[in-house]
Amino acid sequence: MRVTLLGTGTSQGVPMIACDCEVCQSSDPKDHRFRCSAWVQSDDLSILIDTTPDLRSQALRAGIRHLDAVVCTHAHNDHLIGFDDLRRFCDRNRPPLSVYCSSETHERLLTVFPYAFQEDNSPYNSYVRAQAHVFDGPFELGALRFVPVLVPHGRTLTHGFILEENGIRHLAYIPDCAALTESMTEALRDIPVLIIDGLRDKPHPTHMNVPAALAAACTVRAGTTYLTHLTHDISHAQRSPLLPENVFLAYDGLVLDFPT
Amino acid sequence: MRVTLLGTGTSQGVPMIACDCEVCQSSDPKDHRFRCSAWVQSDDLSILIDTTPDLRSQALRAGIRHLDAVVCTHAHNDHLIGFDDLRRFCDRNRPPLSVYCSSETHERLLTVFPYAFQEDNSPYNSYVRAQAHVFDGPFELGALRFVPVLVPHGRTLTHGFILEENGIRHLAYIPDCAALTESMTEALRDIPVLIIDGLRDKPHPTHMNVPAALAAACTVRAGTTYLTHLTHDISHAQRSPLLPENVFLAYDGLVLDFPT
Repeated sequence: MRVTLLGTGTSQGVPMIACDCEVCQSSDPKDHRFRCSAWVQSDDLSILIDTTPDLRSQALRAGIRHLDAVVCTHAHNDHLIGFDDLRRFCDRNRPPLSVYCSSETHERLLTVFPYAFQEDNSPYNSYVRAQAHVFDGPFELGALRFVPVLVPHGRTLTHGFILEENGIRHLAYIPDCAALTESMTEALRDIPVLIIDGLRDKPHPTHMNVPAALAAACTVRAGTTYLTHLTHDISHAQRSPLLPENVFLAYDGLVLDFPT
Repeated sequence: MRVTLLGTGTSQGVPMIACDCEVCQSSDPKDHRFRCSAWVQSDDLSILIDTTPDLRSQALRAGIRHLDAVVCTHAHNDHLIGFDDLRRFCDRNRPPLSVYCSSETHERLLTVFPYAFQEDNSPYNSYVRAQAHVFDGPFELGALRFVPVLVPHGRTLTHGFILEENGIRHLAYIPDCAALTESMTEALRDIPVLIIDGLRDKPHPTHMNVPAALAAACTVRAGTTYLTHLTHDISHAQRSPLLPENVFLAYDGLVLDFPT
Protein backbone atom coordinates (compact mmCIF):
# COMPACT_ATOMS: atom_id res chain seq x y z
CA MET A 1 0.00 0.00 0.00
CA ARG A 2 1.19 3.50 -0.84
CA VAL A 3 -0.17 6.70 0.65
CA THR A 4 0.69 10.01 -1.01
CA LEU A 5 -0.15 13.23 0.81
CA LEU A 6 -1.57 15.52 -1.88
CA GLY A 7 -1.99 18.48 0.45
CA THR A 8 -0.90 19.26 4.00
CA GLY A 9 -2.15 22.81 4.46
CA THR A 10 -4.90 24.35 6.49
CA SER A 11 -8.09 25.77 5.01
CA GLN A 12 -6.46 28.72 3.25
CA GLY A 13 -3.40 26.83 2.06
CA VAL A 14 0.19 28.05 2.25
CA PRO A 15 1.19 30.49 0.89
CA MET A 16 -1.90 32.42 1.85
CA ILE A 17 -3.14 35.01 -0.61
CA ALA A 18 -1.63 38.45 0.04
CA CYS A 19 0.55 37.37 2.95
CA ASP A 20 4.11 38.67 3.26
CA CYS A 21 5.24 36.42 6.11
CA GLU A 22 8.45 34.43 5.86
CA VAL A 23 6.70 31.10 5.28
CA CYS A 24 4.26 32.44 2.68
CA GLN A 25 7.24 33.96 0.84
CA SER A 26 9.39 30.85 1.29
CA SER A 27 10.90 29.17 -1.77
CA ASP A 28 11.06 25.81 0.06
CA PRO A 29 8.54 23.51 -1.70
CA LYS A 30 7.88 21.93 1.71
CA ASP A 31 6.36 25.25 2.78
CA HIS A 32 3.90 25.17 -0.14
CA ARG A 33 0.78 23.45 1.09
CA PHE A 34 -2.36 22.67 -0.83
CA ARG A 35 -5.46 21.87 1.20
CA CYS A 36 -5.41 18.44 2.94
CA SER A 37 -6.03 15.26 1.01
CA ALA A 38 -4.41 11.88 0.51
CA TRP A 39 -4.17 9.33 -2.29
CA VAL A 40 -4.17 5.67 -1.36
CA GLN A 41 -2.95 2.99 -3.79
CA SER A 42 -3.17 -0.72 -3.14
CA ASP A 43 -2.67 -3.23 -5.95
CA ASP A 44 -4.77 -1.75 -8.75
CA LEU A 45 -6.99 0.25 -6.41
CA SER A 46 -6.74 4.03 -6.40
CA ILE A 47 -8.62 5.88 -3.67
CA LEU A 48 -8.78 9.58 -2.88
CA ILE A 49 -9.42 10.86 0.64
CA ASP A 50 -11.14 14.27 0.39
CA THR A 51 -11.80 16.52 -2.58
CA THR A 52 -10.15 19.84 -1.77
CA PRO A 53 -10.46 23.11 -3.71
CA ASP A 54 -7.00 22.24 -5.09
CA LEU A 55 -8.08 18.83 -6.43
CA ARG A 56 -7.30 19.50 -10.10
CA SER A 57 -3.81 20.84 -9.37
CA GLN A 58 -3.15 18.01 -6.93
CA ALA A 59 -4.25 15.28 -9.34
CA LEU A 60 -2.12 16.75 -12.12
CA ARG A 61 0.94 17.03 -9.88
CA ALA A 62 0.61 13.50 -8.49
CA GLY A 63 -0.27 12.02 -11.88
CA ILE A 64 -3.50 10.37 -10.78
CA ARG A 65 -4.84 8.44 -13.79
CA HIS A 66 -7.96 6.85 -12.36
CA LEU A 67 -9.93 6.57 -9.14
CA ASP A 68 -11.93 3.63 -7.87
CA ALA A 69 -13.43 5.41 -4.89
CA VAL A 70 -13.44 8.60 -2.87
CA VAL A 71 -13.55 8.70 0.93
CA CYS A 72 -14.64 11.84 2.80
CA THR A 73 -13.51 12.94 6.25
CA HIS A 74 -16.11 15.71 6.64
CA ALA A 75 -18.11 18.36 4.87
CA HIS A 76 -15.99 21.45 5.42
CA ASN A 77 -15.28 23.47 2.33
CA ASP A 78 -11.52 22.91 2.32
CA HIS A 79 -12.04 19.13 2.22
CA LEU A 80 -15.03 18.89 -0.11
CA ILE A 81 -15.62 21.79 -2.49
CA GLY A 82 -13.36 20.44 -5.27
CA PHE A 83 -15.80 17.53 -5.73
CA ASP A 84 -16.81 18.57 -9.26
CA ASP A 85 -13.24 18.04 -10.49
CA LEU A 86 -13.83 14.32 -9.98
CA ARG A 87 -15.55 14.46 -13.37
CA ARG A 88 -12.32 13.39 -15.08
CA PHE A 89 -12.51 10.15 -13.10
CA CYS A 90 -16.08 9.44 -14.23
CA ASP A 91 -17.11 7.71 -17.39
CA ARG A 92 -20.65 7.06 -18.58
CA ASN A 93 -19.59 3.60 -19.69
CA ARG A 94 -18.61 2.65 -16.15
CA PRO A 95 -20.60 2.65 -12.92
CA PRO A 96 -20.75 5.94 -11.00
CA LEU A 97 -17.74 6.74 -8.82
CA SER A 98 -18.21 5.36 -5.28
CA VAL A 99 -18.10 8.04 -2.59
CA TYR A 100 -17.85 6.88 1.03
CA CYS A 101 -19.06 9.52 3.43
CA SER A 102 -20.98 10.24 6.60
CA SER A 103 -24.67 11.10 6.39
CA GLU A 104 -23.82 14.72 7.17
CA THR A 105 -21.32 14.90 4.31
CA HIS A 106 -23.79 13.15 2.03
CA GLU A 107 -26.37 15.82 2.81
CA ARG A 108 -23.89 18.58 1.98
CA LEU A 109 -22.92 16.86 -1.27
CA LEU A 110 -26.58 16.59 -2.28
CA THR A 111 -27.04 20.30 -1.55
CA VAL A 112 -23.99 21.53 -3.41
CA PHE A 113 -23.61 18.98 -6.21
CA PRO A 114 -27.10 17.46 -6.65
CA TYR A 115 -26.51 16.74 -10.35
CA ALA A 116 -23.70 14.33 -9.48
CA PHE A 117 -26.13 11.94 -7.83
CA GLN A 118 -28.95 11.98 -10.37
CA GLU A 119 -29.59 8.81 -12.34
CA ASP A 120 -28.97 10.34 -15.73
CA ASN A 121 -27.36 13.60 -14.86
CA SER A 122 -26.44 14.93 -18.25
CA PRO A 123 -26.60 14.29 -21.96
CA TYR A 124 -22.82 14.72 -21.97
CA ASN A 125 -20.17 12.30 -20.90
CA SER A 126 -18.13 14.68 -18.87
CA TYR A 127 -20.19 15.36 -15.75
CA VAL A 128 -19.23 14.04 -12.35
CA ARG A 129 -21.38 11.01 -11.61
CA ALA A 130 -21.23 9.55 -8.14
CA GLN A 131 -22.82 6.91 -5.97
CA ALA A 132 -22.84 7.69 -2.26
CA HIS A 133 -22.13 4.98 0.29
CA VAL A 134 -22.98 6.33 3.72
CA PHE A 135 -20.83 4.48 6.24
CA ASP A 136 -21.69 3.75 9.84
CA GLY A 137 -18.73 1.49 10.51
CA PRO A 138 -15.70 -0.06 8.77
CA PHE A 139 -15.90 -0.70 5.03
CA GLU A 140 -13.71 -2.65 2.65
CA LEU A 141 -12.29 -1.79 -0.75
CA GLY A 142 -10.30 -4.68 -2.20
CA ALA A 143 -7.62 -5.64 0.28
CA LEU A 144 -8.13 -2.37 2.14
CA ARG A 145 -10.28 -1.82 5.20
CA PHE A 146 -11.20 1.70 6.29
CA VAL A 147 -12.10 2.01 9.95
CA PRO A 148 -13.79 5.37 10.61
CA VAL A 149 -12.79 7.08 13.84
CA LEU A 150 -15.10 9.79 15.13
CA VAL A 151 -13.12 12.94 15.88
CA PRO A 152 -14.17 16.18 17.63
CA HIS A 153 -13.66 19.29 15.49
CA GLY A 154 -15.24 22.32 17.10
CA ARG A 155 -18.98 22.49 16.56
CA THR A 156 -18.88 19.45 14.31
CA LEU A 157 -17.47 15.94 14.19
CA THR A 158 -15.16 14.66 11.50
CA HIS A 159 -14.00 11.18 10.63
CA GLY A 160 -10.43 10.06 10.66
CA PHE A 161 -9.64 6.64 9.23
CA ILE A 162 -7.51 3.72 10.28
CA LEU A 163 -6.28 1.95 7.14
CA GLU A 164 -5.71 -1.77 7.15
CA GLU A 165 -4.48 -3.86 4.24
CA ASN A 166 -4.87 -7.63 4.20
CA GLY A 167 -5.66 -7.48 7.90
CA ILE A 168 -2.54 -5.46 8.76
CA ARG A 169 -3.18 -2.17 10.53
CA HIS A 170 -0.88 0.34 8.83
CA LEU A 171 -1.82 3.90 9.64
CA ALA A 172 -4.36 6.41 10.87
CA TYR A 173 -5.22 9.56 8.90
CA ILE A 174 -6.81 12.29 11.00
CA PRO A 175 -6.49 15.66 9.32
CA ASP A 176 -8.96 17.70 11.40
CA CYS A 177 -9.03 17.11 15.12
CA ALA A 178 -9.61 19.34 18.14
CA ALA A 179 -8.64 16.81 20.84
CA LEU A 180 -7.92 13.18 21.55
CA THR A 181 -10.96 11.43 23.01
CA GLU A 182 -10.99 8.20 24.99
CA SER A 183 -12.53 6.23 22.15
CA MET A 184 -9.88 7.63 19.78
CA THR A 185 -7.13 6.66 22.20
CA GLU A 186 -8.44 3.12 22.28
CA ALA A 187 -8.81 2.88 18.50
CA LEU A 188 -5.39 4.37 17.75
CA ARG A 189 -3.37 2.51 20.39
CA ASP A 190 0.04 1.40 18.98
CA ILE A 191 -0.76 2.59 15.48
CA PRO A 192 2.43 2.22 13.39
CA VAL A 193 1.94 5.51 11.50
CA LEU A 194 -0.18 8.43 12.66
CA ILE A 195 -0.93 11.34 10.33
CA ILE A 196 -2.65 13.94 12.46
CA ASP A 197 -3.72 17.58 12.67
CA GLY A 198 -0.88 19.69 14.09
CA LEU A 199 -1.94 23.12 12.71
CA ARG A 200 0.55 25.44 14.42
CA ASP A 201 2.13 26.10 17.82
CA LYS A 202 -0.50 28.51 19.14
CA PRO A 203 -3.70 26.90 20.46
CA HIS A 204 -6.82 26.89 18.28
CA PRO A 205 -10.42 26.15 19.30
CA THR A 206 -11.09 23.48 16.65
CA HIS A 207 -7.64 22.06 15.85
CA MET A 208 -4.89 20.50 17.91
CA ASN A 209 -1.69 22.52 17.92
CA VAL A 210 1.75 20.92 17.70
CA PRO A 211 2.11 20.31 21.45
CA ALA A 212 -1.35 18.72 21.63
CA ALA A 213 -0.59 16.52 18.62
CA LEU A 214 2.72 15.44 20.17
CA ALA A 215 0.92 14.57 23.39
CA ALA A 216 -1.70 12.59 21.46
CA ALA A 217 0.98 10.69 19.55
CA CYS A 218 2.65 9.87 22.85
CA THR A 219 -0.62 8.81 24.50
CA VAL A 220 -1.55 6.38 21.73
CA ARG A 221 2.09 5.19 21.42
CA ALA A 222 2.24 5.91 17.68
CA GLY A 223 5.26 4.45 15.90
CA THR A 224 5.91 7.37 13.57
CA THR A 225 3.85 10.56 13.50
CA TYR A 226 3.39 13.09 10.71
CA LEU A 227 1.79 16.44 11.52
CA THR A 228 -0.51 17.81 8.82
CA HIS A 229 -3.11 20.56 8.21
CA LEU A 230 -0.36 23.10 8.82
CA THR A 231 -0.68 26.88 8.73
CA HIS A 232 1.82 29.49 7.60
CA ASP A 233 3.04 29.68 11.20
CA ILE A 234 5.02 26.51 10.54
CA SER A 235 8.31 26.84 8.65
CA HIS A 236 9.32 23.35 7.57
CA ALA A 237 13.05 24.00 7.85
CA GLN A 238 12.85 25.80 11.20
CA ARG A 239 10.23 23.69 12.96
CA SER A 240 11.31 20.21 11.84
CA PRO A 241 14.56 20.03 13.89
CA LEU A 242 12.64 20.82 17.08
CA LEU A 243 10.39 17.76 16.86
CA PRO A 244 10.96 14.45 18.70
CA GLU A 245 12.82 11.88 16.64
CA ASN A 246 9.78 9.84 15.61
CA VAL A 247 7.67 12.89 14.69
CA PHE A 248 7.86 14.74 11.37
CA LEU A 249 6.14 17.57 9.61
CA ALA A 250 4.15 16.25 6.68
CA TYR A 251 4.58 17.97 3.33
CA ASP A 252 2.84 17.92 -0.03
CA GLY A 253 4.00 14.96 -2.08
CA LEU A 254 5.18 12.89 0.89
CA VAL A 255 4.96 9.21 -0.08
CA LEU A 256 4.61 6.49 2.54
CA ASP A 257 5.03 2.89 1.45
CA PHE A 258 3.78 -0.01 3.50
CA PRO A 259 4.79 -3.61 2.86
CA THR A 260 1.90 -5.71 1.58
CA MET B 1 -7.83 50.58 -16.56
CA ARG B 2 -6.01 47.27 -16.60
CA VAL B 3 -7.60 43.88 -17.25
CA THR B 4 -5.64 40.72 -16.41
CA LEU B 5 -6.97 37.38 -17.59
CA LEU B 6 -6.46 35.04 -14.64
CA GLY B 7 -7.74 31.98 -16.46
CA THR B 8 -8.68 31.21 -20.06
CA GLY B 9 -9.58 27.53 -19.88
CA THR B 10 -12.79 25.63 -20.17
CA SER B 11 -14.51 23.92 -17.25
CA GLN B 12 -11.89 21.22 -16.72
CA GLY B 13 -8.88 23.47 -17.31
CA VAL B 14 -5.87 22.64 -19.47
CA PRO B 15 -4.03 20.37 -18.93
CA MET B 16 -6.93 18.08 -18.14
CA ILE B 17 -6.37 15.46 -15.47
CA ALA B 18 -5.07 12.18 -16.94
CA CYS B 19 -4.94 13.38 -20.53
CA ASP B 20 -1.99 12.48 -22.75
CA CYS B 21 -2.82 14.74 -25.68
CA GLU B 22 -0.23 17.06 -27.14
CA VAL B 23 -1.72 20.21 -25.61
CA CYS B 24 -2.22 18.70 -22.14
CA GLN B 25 1.41 17.57 -22.26
CA SER B 26 2.64 20.87 -23.68
CA SER B 27 5.36 22.80 -21.88
CA ASP B 28 4.17 26.09 -23.39
CA PRO B 29 2.76 28.16 -20.49
CA LYS B 30 0.19 29.56 -22.94
CA ASP B 31 -1.30 26.07 -23.15
CA HIS B 32 -1.78 25.97 -19.35
CA ARG B 33 -5.25 27.31 -18.65
CA PHE B 34 -6.92 27.82 -15.31
CA ARG B 35 -10.68 28.21 -15.32
CA CYS B 36 -11.93 31.58 -16.70
CA SER B 37 -11.76 34.73 -14.64
CA ALA B 38 -10.51 38.27 -14.98
CA TRP B 39 -9.07 40.92 -12.69
CA VAL B 40 -9.97 44.55 -13.36
CA GLN B 41 -7.92 47.39 -11.89
CA SER B 42 -8.85 51.05 -12.19
CA ASP B 43 -7.21 53.69 -10.02
CA ASP B 44 -7.29 52.08 -6.58
CA LEU B 45 -10.19 49.78 -7.42
CA SER B 46 -9.57 46.05 -7.68
CA ILE B 47 -12.41 43.93 -9.03
CA LEU B 48 -12.58 40.20 -9.72
CA ILE B 49 -14.87 38.76 -12.38
CA ASP B 50 -15.81 35.19 -11.36
CA THR B 51 -14.52 32.97 -8.57
CA THR B 52 -13.22 29.83 -10.23
CA PRO B 53 -12.08 26.60 -8.53
CA ASP B 54 -8.54 27.88 -9.22
CA LEU B 55 -9.08 31.20 -7.39
CA ARG B 56 -6.38 30.74 -4.75
CA SER B 57 -3.71 29.76 -7.28
CA GLN B 58 -4.79 32.56 -9.61
CA ALA B 59 -4.71 35.22 -6.91
CA LEU B 60 -1.27 34.08 -5.76
CA ARG B 61 0.10 34.06 -9.29
CA ALA B 62 -1.29 37.48 -10.18
CA GLY B 63 -0.36 38.97 -6.81
CA ILE B 64 -3.83 40.23 -5.93
CA ARG B 65 -3.52 42.10 -2.63
CA HIS B 66 -7.08 43.27 -2.09
CA LEU B 67 -10.48 43.25 -3.73
CA ASP B 68 -13.16 45.94 -3.63
CA ALA B 69 -15.82 43.90 -5.40
CA VAL B 70 -16.58 40.67 -7.19
CA VAL B 71 -18.70 40.44 -10.32
CA CYS B 72 -20.29 37.15 -11.41
CA THR B 73 -21.09 36.06 -14.96
CA HIS B 74 -23.17 33.03 -13.98
CA ALA B 75 -23.61 30.23 -11.49
CA HIS B 76 -21.81 27.36 -13.20
CA ASN B 77 -19.33 25.53 -11.03
CA ASP B 78 -16.24 26.50 -13.03
CA HIS B 79 -17.03 30.20 -12.55
CA LEU B 80 -18.30 30.20 -8.98
CA ILE B 81 -17.20 27.33 -6.73
CA GLY B 82 -13.96 28.99 -5.56
CA PHE B 83 -16.05 31.64 -3.77
CA ASP B 84 -14.88 30.61 -0.30
CA ASP B 85 -11.30 31.55 -1.17
CA LEU B 86 -12.47 35.18 -1.17
CA ARG B 87 -12.04 34.95 2.60
CA ARG B 88 -8.55 36.41 2.34
CA PHE B 89 -10.12 39.57 0.89
CA CYS B 90 -12.57 39.91 3.78
CA ASP B 91 -11.92 41.63 7.06
CA ARG B 92 -14.29 41.90 9.96
CA ASN B 93 -13.20 45.50 10.44
CA ARG B 94 -14.38 46.44 6.97
CA PRO B 95 -17.78 46.15 5.32
CA PRO B 96 -18.59 42.79 3.68
CA LEU B 97 -17.16 42.25 0.19
CA SER B 98 -19.60 43.46 -2.47
CA VAL B 99 -20.67 40.73 -4.90
CA TYR B 100 -22.55 41.79 -8.03
CA CYS B 101 -24.58 38.97 -9.50
CA SER B 102 -27.83 37.94 -11.16
CA SER B 103 -30.71 36.71 -9.01
CA GLU B 104 -30.01 33.16 -10.24
CA THR B 105 -26.36 33.35 -9.18
CA HIS B 106 -27.39 34.90 -5.87
CA GLU B 107 -29.68 31.95 -5.22
CA ARG B 108 -26.87 29.49 -5.94
CA LEU B 109 -24.47 31.41 -3.67
CA LEU B 110 -27.04 31.33 -0.86
CA THR B 111 -27.41 27.56 -1.33
CA VAL B 112 -23.72 26.71 -1.44
CA PHE B 113 -22.17 29.39 0.78
CA PRO B 114 -25.02 30.53 3.08
CA TYR B 115 -22.61 31.42 5.90
CA ALA B 116 -20.98 34.09 3.72
CA PHE B 117 -24.16 36.16 3.72
CA GLN B 118 -25.15 35.91 7.36
CA GLU B 119 -24.98 39.05 9.48
CA ASP B 120 -22.46 37.69 11.94
CA ASN B 121 -21.24 34.59 10.22
CA SER B 122 -18.48 33.50 12.54
CA PRO B 123 -16.70 34.19 15.77
CA TYR B 124 -13.48 34.19 13.75
CA ASN B 125 -12.09 36.85 11.49
CA SER B 126 -11.23 34.64 8.62
CA TYR B 127 -14.55 33.63 7.07
CA VAL B 128 -15.74 34.95 3.75
CA ARG B 129 -18.25 37.69 4.37
CA ALA B 130 -20.15 39.06 1.41
CA GLN B 131 -22.93 41.45 0.53
CA ALA B 132 -24.85 40.55 -2.61
CA HIS B 133 -25.92 43.25 -5.05
CA VAL B 134 -28.35 41.71 -7.51
CA PHE B 135 -28.11 43.69 -10.74
CA ASP B 136 -30.85 44.22 -13.29
CA GLY B 137 -28.98 46.75 -15.37
CA PRO B 138 -25.69 48.68 -15.50
CA PHE B 139 -23.88 49.39 -12.23
CA GLU B 140 -21.00 51.64 -11.34
CA LEU B 141 -17.88 51.05 -9.27
CA GLY B 142 -15.75 54.19 -9.02
CA ALA B 143 -14.95 55.36 -12.53
CA LEU B 144 -16.03 51.99 -13.94
CA ARG B 145 -19.41 51.11 -15.36
CA PHE B 146 -20.37 47.48 -15.90
CA VAL B 147 -23.08 46.96 -18.50
CA PRO B 148 -24.50 43.43 -18.25
CA VAL B 149 -25.22 41.72 -21.56
CA LEU B 150 -27.55 38.73 -21.49
CA VAL B 151 -25.96 35.80 -23.29
CA PRO B 152 -27.42 32.41 -24.30
CA HIS B 153 -25.51 29.43 -22.88
CA GLY B 154 -27.39 26.20 -23.48
CA ARG B 155 -30.19 25.66 -21.01
CA THR B 156 -29.23 28.76 -19.06
CA LEU B 157 -28.37 32.41 -19.60
CA THR B 158 -25.12 34.01 -18.55
CA HIS B 159 -24.04 37.62 -18.34
CA GLY B 160 -21.19 39.11 -20.23
CA PHE B 161 -20.14 42.65 -19.36
CA ILE B 162 -19.24 45.73 -21.31
CA LEU B 163 -16.71 47.73 -19.28
CA GLU B 164 -16.65 51.49 -19.46
CA GLU B 165 -14.27 53.79 -17.61
CA ASN B 166 -14.98 57.50 -17.26
CA GLY B 167 -17.63 57.13 -19.94
CA ILE B 168 -15.26 55.45 -22.41
CA ARG B 169 -16.40 52.06 -23.69
CA HIS B 170 -13.29 49.86 -23.56
CA LEU B 171 -14.14 46.19 -23.84
CA ALA B 172 -16.64 43.37 -23.58
CA TYR B 173 -15.96 40.22 -21.55
CA ILE B 174 -18.12 37.26 -22.56
CA PRO B 175 -16.57 34.00 -21.41
CA ASP B 176 -19.55 31.64 -21.91
CA CYS B 177 -21.68 32.12 -24.98
CA ALA B 178 -23.56 29.75 -27.29
CA ALA B 179 -24.47 32.26 -29.99
CA LEU B 180 -24.64 35.94 -30.87
CA THR B 181 -28.16 37.30 -30.40
CA GLU B 182 -29.59 40.44 -31.96
CA SER B 183 -29.56 42.32 -28.66
CA MET B 184 -25.92 41.29 -28.14
CA THR B 185 -25.03 42.48 -31.64
CA GLU B 186 -26.55 45.85 -30.89
CA ALA B 187 -24.85 46.17 -27.49
CA LEU B 188 -21.43 45.08 -28.76
CA ARG B 189 -21.38 47.05 -32.01
CA ASP B 190 -17.89 48.57 -32.63
CA ILE B 191 -16.54 47.44 -29.28
CA PRO B 192 -12.79 48.20 -29.23
CA VAL B 193 -11.81 44.95 -27.48
CA LEU B 194 -13.90 41.77 -27.41
CA ILE B 195 -12.96 38.87 -25.13
CA ILE B 196 -15.27 36.03 -26.10
CA ASP B 197 -15.87 32.30 -25.80
CA GLY B 198 -14.03 30.44 -28.59
CA LEU B 199 -13.83 26.99 -26.98
CA ARG B 200 -12.39 24.87 -29.83
CA ASP B 201 -12.85 24.29 -33.56
CA LYS B 202 -15.49 21.57 -33.34
CA PRO B 203 -19.05 22.78 -32.66
CA HIS B 204 -20.48 22.53 -29.13
CA PRO B 205 -24.12 22.85 -28.06
CA THR B 206 -23.54 25.52 -25.37
CA HIS B 207 -20.38 27.33 -26.50
CA MET B 208 -19.35 29.12 -29.68
CA ASN B 209 -16.48 27.45 -31.47
CA VAL B 210 -13.65 29.40 -33.08
CA PRO B 211 -15.43 29.92 -36.43
CA ALA B 212 -18.60 31.12 -34.66
CA ALA B 213 -16.57 33.49 -32.46
CA LEU B 214 -14.77 34.88 -35.52
CA ALA B 215 -18.10 35.44 -37.23
CA ALA B 216 -19.46 37.18 -34.12
CA ALA B 217 -16.39 39.41 -33.91
CA CYS B 218 -16.87 40.32 -37.55
CA THR B 219 -20.60 40.97 -37.16
CA VAL B 220 -20.15 43.36 -34.24
CA ARG B 221 -17.07 44.93 -35.91
CA ALA B 222 -14.85 44.36 -32.86
CA GLY B 223 -11.52 46.20 -32.95
CA THR B 224 -9.42 43.45 -31.42
CA THR B 225 -10.75 40.06 -30.35
CA TYR B 226 -9.37 37.58 -27.83
CA LEU B 227 -10.77 34.06 -27.76
CA THR B 228 -11.10 32.54 -24.30
CA HIS B 229 -12.65 29.54 -22.46
CA LEU B 230 -10.40 27.30 -24.54
CA THR B 231 -10.21 23.50 -24.41
CA HIS B 232 -7.23 21.22 -24.87
CA ASP B 233 -8.13 21.04 -28.57
CA ILE B 234 -6.47 24.43 -29.00
CA SER B 235 -2.67 24.52 -29.19
CA HIS B 236 -1.62 28.13 -28.70
CA ALA B 237 1.42 27.87 -30.97
CA GLN B 238 -0.35 25.94 -33.73
CA ARG B 239 -3.72 27.70 -33.75
CA SER B 240 -2.59 31.31 -33.28
CA PRO B 241 -1.00 31.77 -36.75
CA LEU B 242 -4.24 30.67 -38.42
CA LEU B 243 -6.32 33.49 -36.93
CA PRO B 244 -7.20 36.78 -38.67
CA GLU B 245 -4.79 39.60 -37.87
CA ASN B 246 -7.01 41.34 -35.30
CA VAL B 247 -7.96 38.12 -33.49
CA PHE B 248 -5.80 36.41 -30.84
CA LEU B 249 -5.99 33.45 -28.52
CA ALA B 250 -6.21 34.64 -24.94
CA TYR B 251 -3.87 33.10 -22.40
CA ASP B 252 -3.52 33.07 -18.63
CA GLY B 253 -1.76 36.19 -17.44
CA LEU B 254 -2.59 38.29 -20.52
CA VAL B 255 -2.67 41.95 -19.47
CA LEU B 256 -4.65 44.53 -21.39
CA ASP B 257 -4.09 48.19 -20.58
CA PHE B 258 -6.56 50.87 -21.55
CA PRO B 259 -5.77 54.59 -21.45
CA THR B 260 -7.72 56.39 -18.74
